Amino acid sequence: MSQEGLSYAAAGVDIEAYERVLERVKPLIAATHGNEVAQGVGPFAGLYSLPGGGTLAARADGVGTKIKVAIAAGQHRGIGVDIVNHCVNDIATAGARPLFFLDYFATGKLDPEVFSKMIEGMSDACRAARCALLGGETAEMPGVYALGDYDLAGFIVGLVDGPAREPVVEGDVLVGLPSNGLHTNGYSLARKVFEGVSLDATLSRELLATHTSYLDDLDRIRWKAAAHVTGGGITGNLPRCLPEGLAARLHRGSWKVPPIFEKIRSRGRVSDDEMWGTFNMGLGMIVVVDPKDVAHGAIVVGEVIRQAGSDRVTIR
Amino acid sequence: MSQEGLSYAAAGVDIEAYERVLERVKPLIAATHGNEVAQGVGPFAGLYSLPGGGTLAARADGVGTKIKVAIAAGQHRGIGVDIVNHCVNDIATAGARPLFFLDYFATGKLDPEVFSKMIEGMSDACRAARCALLGGETAEMPGVYALGDYDLAGFIVGLVDGPAREPVVEGDVLVGLPSNGLHTNGYSLARKVFEGVSLDATLSRELLATHTSYLDDLDRIRWKAAAHVTGGGITGNLPRCLPEGLAARLHRGSWKVPPIFEKIRSRGRVSDDEMWGTFNMGLGMIVVVDPKDVAHGAIVVGEVIRQAGSDRVTIR
Repeated sequence: MSQEGLSYAAAGVDIEAYERVLERVKPLIAATHGNEVAQGVGPFAGLYSLPGGGTLAARADGVGTKIKVAIAAGQHRGIGVDIVNHCVNDIATAGARPLFFLDYFATGKLDPEVFSKMIEGMSDACRAARCALLGGETAEMPGVYALGDYDLAGFIVGLVDGPAREPVVEGDVLVGLPSNGLHTNGYSLARKVFEGVSLDATLSRELLATHTSYLDDLDRIRWKAAAHVTGGGITGNLPRCLPEGLAARLHRGSWKVPPIFEKIRSRGRVSDDEMWGTFNMGLGMIVVVDPKDVAHGAIVVGEVIRQAGSDRVTIR
Repeated sequence: MSQEGLSYAAAGVDIEAYERVLERVKPLIAATHGNEVAQGVGPFAGLYSLPGGGTLAARADGVGTKIKVAIAAGQHRGIGVDIVNHCVNDIATAGARPLFFLDYFATGKLDPEVFSKMIEGMSDACRAARCALLGGETAEMPGVYALGDYDLAGFIVGLVDGPAREPVVEGDVLVGLPSNGLHTNGYSLARKVFEGVSLDATLSRELLATHTSYLDDLDRIRWKAAAHVTGGGITGNLPRCLPEGLAARLHRGSWKVPPIFEKIRSRGRVSDDEMWGTFNMGLGMIVVVDPKDVAHGAIVVGEVIRQAGSDRVTIR
C-alpha cells in the first residue's frame, strides 16, 4: 500500500477523464434529440415525451466491480437485486415509477447456477418495485470474459407520474435516506484496499449488502429534488440535483456512517476528499425538502445554501 | 483445426445450454408480468401496454465478440452503428419504430478515442433511425476487462404503430432482405476459423461490415411477420415468427450469399447445419408475405408449409 493512501484514480477509475470525453461527444448526442427529449444525458435519467402524452424516464446502469466480490464469495442473487434497485432509484429521482426492466448479462461461459441466481434476484427486486422483467440479452463471449467472470447491465423505463416539483431554493433542507453499505459503487477502490485480505463472512456481508430501493421512501416524502448517490459519491452527485448558484452544506455526524466506510478509510489511508467523492458514506439518496415538509424522524443532514466559492458541497 | 470441422459450441458458445436454463427461470420472470406485458421473453422484443394507451416494444442486445475484431483492426465507429441497428431491427419485427436508445459501455481503462468513435457510430445510426440517444452508462472496470478490451450493450424502446398484421398461413411467401456479412453474429466461430490469419484490409472489411438497418425496407413492404436473423442463425430465428404447426422451406441459390460465409465454411470445415444455425447466410431479415403482396424485385427465398417432421426449417 502506498504511503500517500489509495485513491479511486489509482485503483484504475478516472471519473474526471470521463467527464472530459463526455463534453466532447455531447454535441453528437444532442444532434439525435428532437423536441421529445426533455432531458438528455443529464442528472439521473433521460426523459422522453410520448407522442400521445405522458413522459418516460429511462436509464442504463451497471454494477461495476462489485461482481468481482460476488464471484469471490459465490453469491450472485444479490447482484441481481443490486442492478434493479440501482435503476429503480435513478428514475425515481425524476419522479418516475418503473414500468419495465431489461438486463444484459455477458460471460465467458454460461454457468446455469450463476445465471439462475441472478435472474432470481432481478425477478424479486422487479416484483417488489411492481416492474416487469420484460427481456434481456445473454451473451457468451469467450476471450472477452475470463472463466467465471461476468458483467451485468440493467435498463429501466418508468413513467413520470409524480406531482410537479417546487423549485429548490436557499434554505431548503437536505434529508438523507440511509444506505446499508457501498451499494454498487467504489468497489474498484474497496477491492484495492482489501487486496490480500481474506473475504470472511463479516467482510463479504458488508461488501455484498444489496443496493437499497428508495422507491417507497420517495413516495412517502414530499420532496423537491433528489440525488441518487452512486459513482462520484456525495460530492459528485448531490450538486446534480441543485440549480446553478446553489450549493449544499452537510453536517458530519448528523447521520450514521456504516462501519465499512471507516474500515476502508483507515486501512487504505484514503483521504477525506476521496471518500466523499467515491462513496455514499451512508447516504444512498439525499432529498431536498422544504423546511415545512420535514417529517418527524427524518434524518436532516444539511441545507441548501448560496454558492460562495467553487465548492458545491461543503462538509463540516 | 480438428478433423471434424469447427462448431459454434466448440468455439465456446452453447446456445442449447442457454435454452435449457432459460426454461428454468421463465416462471420467475413470468411472475413479474402483469396484464401490461403483452409478450415477455419472446420473439424479438418485449411488448408493454402503456396505462394511457399505446404499446411499447423494448429490447436489449449486445454486439458479441465482433468487438474483438474491431479492436484488432482499430475500427470502432462501426460497432456503434452495429449495436443501434441490431436493436432497431429487433423491435421493427414487432412493427415498432424507435423512440430512444441507451447504451452500456464497459472497459478496463477508458480510451477517449475509442469511446468517441463508438458514440459517433451510435449517434449516426440513431439519427438515421430518427431515434434519440437518450443516455448511457460508461463503466471502467479494471480487472474484469483486459487492457484495450471493452463490451457494448444497447437498449431500445419503440412505439408499436404499424397496422395490425394478418396471421401467417400455409402458402405464404418468404421474402429475404439481404445482409452484407455476419452483422453481429457468429463471431466466436468466425474468429476461431480465422485464428492465425492476418486481418488484412479485405478480411477486416468483410468481417466489420456494419449491421444493416431494415427499418425503411419494412416500411415499404406489406408483411405479416418478420424474423431478424441473429444468434441462432436462420434455423434458430425463422421459426420464432411462425405459428405452431407451420414450417419454412427455403430454396438454396434463390439469394446471393456473401463470400465471407463460403470462406468460413471451407476454411473451418463447418457443417451445413452449423452454418445455417449460426449465421444469417446473406439474409439479415426474412419476412412472411401474402403471395398477392410480393412486390416486383422482391427476393423470394421460400414459402410457409405445414410442418411434417420435427424440422421447422428445411433448406434444399
